[in-house]
Amino acid sequence: MAKLRVHAFSISLDGYGAGPNQRLEAPLGEQGTLLHEWIFGTKTFRALQGLEGGETGVDDDFIAEGFENIGATIMGRNMFGPIRGEWPNDEWKGWWGDVPPYHHDVFVLTHHPKQSFAMGGGTTFHFVTDGIESALAQAQAAAGNRDIRLGGGVDTIKQYMRAALVDDLHIAIVPVLLGEGERLLDGLGDASGRYVVTEWVTSPKVTHARLTRIDR
Amino acid sequence: MAKLRVHAFSISLDGYGAGPNQRLEAPLGEQGTLLHEWIFGTKTFRALQGLEGGETGVDDDFIAEGFENIGATIMGRNMFGPIRGEWPNDEWKGWWGDVPPYHHDVFVLTHHPKQSFAMGGGTTFHFVTDGIESALAQAQAAAGNRDIRLGGGVDTIKQYMRAALVDDLHIAIVPVLLGEGERLLDGLGDASGRYVVTEWVTSPKVTHARLTRIDR
Repeated sequence: MAKLRVHAFSISLDGYGAGPNQRLEAPLGEQGTLLHEWIFGTKTFRALQGLEGGETGVDDDFIAEGFENIGATIMGRNMFGPIRGEWPNDEWKGWWGDVPPYHHDVFVLTHHPKQSFAMGGGTTFHFVTDGIESALAQAQAAAGNRDIRLGGGVDTIKQYMRAALVDDLHIAIVPVLLGEGERLLDGLGDASGRYVVTEWVTSPKVTHARLTRIDR
Repeated sequence: MAKLRVHAFSISLDGYGAGPNQRLEAPLGEQGTLLHEWIFGTKTFRALQGLEGGETGVDDDFIAEGFENIGATIMGRNMFGPIRGEWPNDEWKGWWGDVPPYHHDVFVLTHHPKQSFAMGGGTTFHFVTDGIESALAQAQAAAGNRDIRLGGGVDTIKQYMRAALVDDLHIAIVPVLLGEGERLLDGLGDASGRYVVTEWVTSPKVTHARLTRIDR
């Protein structure tokens, strides 16, 4: 069975996956980009943008792993775009330009129906209005023998964790305090007992934790 | 001026400094001892108990630092003992036996007056009923040119952090999920903007973060 995997999800030392006051000009919330600075210089991230060079090592290894053996992606609506409520038209095609970095089917969770559409490079966006389990089933069908990557935001990941549907979750703990925002490892209820830390390694920039679901 | 320092304060990956349901039989809450297992094997901790041997390295270095140049200690009442409300008598002398590992004046925050008393090895316990700033002033007077160590629990440290009275705080992030409990880095308000991470290093067991107060 395809696994549902989270990769390179950054949280602050005080636990926030996004800063306060998220809005169009600050989609990750105030100071939220502080959470992602460890990513920008890596070789894998630069390559995604057509840039050469960049850092290799533990940070880059974790970034690269997030693209290995992935056959479909699930994300929340806020990761797809800034529009809230009904879709006003079909103009918004995602944050990523004409050739999004997915190259497979992407399932966007939303309360508002929207037609699927294809982009360059093999990415097709689908819009799922009947819940997280339906999105997972559709993604499994699309992924074939490969796994499914679960993108953000915080609330989307928490929904899947509370249902213990996430198999493997890589968190990067960033040494900053945000003070407020959306907390990832909070309110998980009984599901928090379903996860154990199976890897724990630090680069000079962040500490990488891998959470793996245990069967019981 | 003497600094107010926190050392070796353990929190779980999900941010808790104590587990749920604290009580006499589980003073650190359920699963709370998981937070401290990285300490027990260190050379410094063993030496405090009169034991030889033990691990050296980064974990031990952080433990040892917590005993350097300390001239007084402040702690919350729950760290002193399990008694709540009025003191029924003078029988309780702390968790530590006849020779507590302080060897200096210890100031216990409480709402209930109690006479100071001296123990073996130079430790004297004082009971402060007029608030955290009074305790700090008394500890400064007692510490002379040395610093003051601030013990737990979570609530005591948060009170001093919210007032931005802590100068330096060493946290050990432990790769476990507790699911619920008392969170340290939460509800600090504006004070969270007064602290920056000035050290970030990992052992195989925990990640050590040092928070330092910035002036402004």
